[in-house]
Amino acid sequence: MTTPAFTAIDHAMMARALRLAERGAYTTRPNPMVGCVVAHGDDVVGEGFHVRRGGPHAEVVALAAAGDRARGATAYVTLEPCAHTGSTPPCVDALLAAGVSRVVAAMRDPFPQVDGRGFERLAAAGVDVASGLLEAQARQLNRGFLSRVERGRPWVRVKLAMSLDGRTAAADGDSKWISGEASRADVHRWRARAGAILTASGTVLADDPALTVRFDDDTLFVPPLRVVLDAGLATTHRGRVREGDAPTLYLHAPDARPPRDLDIARRAVAVQDGRLDLHAVMATLGELQINEVHVEAGASLCGGLLKAGLVDEIVLYVAPVLLGEEARPLFDGLDLHTMGERIGLETLETRQVGADLRLILRPRASGTA
Amino acid sequence: MTTPAFTAIDHAMMARALRLAERGAYTTRPNPMVGCVVAHGDDVVGEGFHVRRGGPHAEVVALAAAGDRARGATAYVTLEPCAHTGSTPPCVDALLAAGVSRVVAAMRDPFPQVDGRGFERLAAAGVDVASGLLEAQARQLNRGFLSRVERGRPWVRVKLAMSLDGRTAAADGDSKWISGEASRADVHRWRARAGAILTASGTVLADDPALTVRFDDDTLFVPPLRVVLDAGLATTHRGRVREGDAPTLYLHAPDARPPRDLDIARRAVAVQDGRLDLHAVMATLGELQINEVHVEAGASLCGGLLKAGLVDEIVLYVAPVLLGEEARPLFDGLDLHTMGERIGLETLETRQVGADLRLILRPRASGTA
Repeated sequence: MTTPAFTAIDHAMMARALRLAERGAYTTRPNPMVGCVVAHGDDVVGEGFHVRRGGPHAEVVALAAAGDRARGATAYVTLEPCAHTGSTPPCVDALLAAGVSRVVAAMRDPFPQVDGRGFERLAAAGVDVASGLLEAQARQLNRGFLSRVERGRPWVRVKLAMSLDGRTAAADGDSKWISGEASRADVHRWRARAGAILTASGTVLADDPALTVRFDDDTLFVPPLRVVLDAGLATTHRGRVREGDAPTLYLHAPDARPPRDLDIARRAVAVQDGRLDLHAVMATLGELQINEVHVEAGASLCGGLLKAGLVDEIVLYVAPVLLGEEARPLFDGLDLHTMGERIGLETLETRQVGADLRLILRPRASGTA
Repeated sequence: MTTPAFTAIDHAMMARALRLAERGAYTTRPNPMVGCVVAHGDDVVGEGFHVRRGGPHAEVVALAAAGDRARGATAYVTLEPCAHTGSTPPCVDALLAAGVSRVVAAMRDPFPQVDGRGFERLAAAGVDVASGLLEAQARQLNRGFLSRVERGRPWVRVKLAMSLDGRTAAADGDSKWISGEASRADVHRWRARAGAILTASGTVLADDPALTVRFDDDTLFVPPLRVVLDAGLATTHRGRVREGDAPTLYLHAPDARPPRDLDIARRAVAVQDGRLDLHAVMATLGELQINEVHVEAGASLCGGLLKAGLVDEIVLYVAPVLLGEEARPLFDGLDLHTMGERIGLETLETRQVGADLRLILRPRASGTA
């Protein structure tokens, strides 16, 4: 592999490949999103992205579009090309057969069956190989896939909607329509990105959410798995969360006693202090090849995840209303008492969505605000 | 007065006059901010703004700069020129003496001694007079002065700093440094605009704030009056709020019994349900010629003002930290129970200030969110 020395054209082509990759956000799961551009200089001769598991990889789509013009070209890929036969043949073979002379990748693929072997095989065949171009952007794009492969658990995103005074429901428990229409539509895009939408039995009982993806247009998506934490399997008999096309999975305590004729997908996870162990929950979802978990739940589960260090990202809709000091708080059970114990967050993005404000935040290490 | 038909040059000149006017924000009180531009077409021959009470008005400064070139020019003023002798002679006389042929104003001055008389005298002398150019901007600039003249009470701005989960202090009461350095510097600019900084005895006891304006540079300002609501005059013996060059005024209940040798400025206001009547407080501040009141207080006073419909503007700093559900709320005593009772706010501006977010909001009529 040569020392990376990337040109302005290289940057432009990789940025294009990243935008292509993102078009698979709602469909590639559990595979990573990958985009590929084949070009001679700034002359793009083929491009493509991975749409869904079992379908052709981005490189194969782009090379097919390029045809003979792939010979001597540079292939820009957002992730190291695979060197193994999965559900499709290795992309390395396709790149070599097409005769590309250079391959530029945004990053190495940490997936154990690739992990450098793709680069090695290309270089051994005389292809000029470079990696690391727009790597941060590529990692951000596939933060879910990378979390699962590198940490053995999904990337956890918590979606919250609150009033300006930090309340998620009125004093009487009513939480409907805190946020505006534009925010509610935006939430469906976040749901669609996720491999699983996680909630707790309390939310099922209180709000009866469907937790499905509903788009106004015909945008293609794979329905995320709906996961309900229900230690005692007490809510399995009801709820819109069981209806519709999307699959539903209940996670419960090992000692739960389901009715004999219970017809649901379920799985036992370990318990700690009488509650489902949230680390075990995430490990289970990782085993199920969930890259990103989208959490829509109440203050108790959200607070528990935050306290357990399991929140990677918070998408917070702030509606310009006041609900008063009796109303329900954002997180429960944080057990903070002094300014020194405060939990610091990093604001990654602030955006107006309708009349609401949308913040994207990441927790910092505790106490380092 | 002619029917207003303003050109692009008119708009540009008035915008320039408004920017000039704003330069008096920290010094003109209780007078309104006024700017003036004298021009032939787009050729500016003189400009100025009112700096402080007793000093020359904007028109006089601009005409002096223009000299003979004012003859036949257009004078753009952000407020109707005065027709009465206050601490300086009428600006109408100065405009007529200088021989301007046209006067364009952003708005009529509702001050009883002006209120259309300036326009009448100019028109009677044969000057072409038009009003209403960028009037909304001019009203926004002098919202404090206009509130006092039109409503008999100051414009009330509440400054709040909260954590992302809507808390103003940790569970142990510590509220220091929720917001960052940039936000704290920003607050001094808001304080400097105000005729009075209002707080309550509880905040004096808990936080001992100085409530003075402190700038890093030599920006000119008139120290705002510090006003402490202390029904029983129980906190007058202490506090940084009594120190420094800025004046301090205590508002107390009629039956408060101050120590005989108490050496403070104080005034009694009516009481309702055992507390100082906040409407009476604001009427008193209006009588004292306060245009804008800047409130820095706890959840109790802020909640009380909001409930009384006395909040015109909220400047809210949101720090990206979590303080937990035990921490102190933003407003107290709002007595809201259902989603239908929520208080709607209008977001006028969202801006990043250091790591914090700064929102400027206005309450809507209750329940109309």
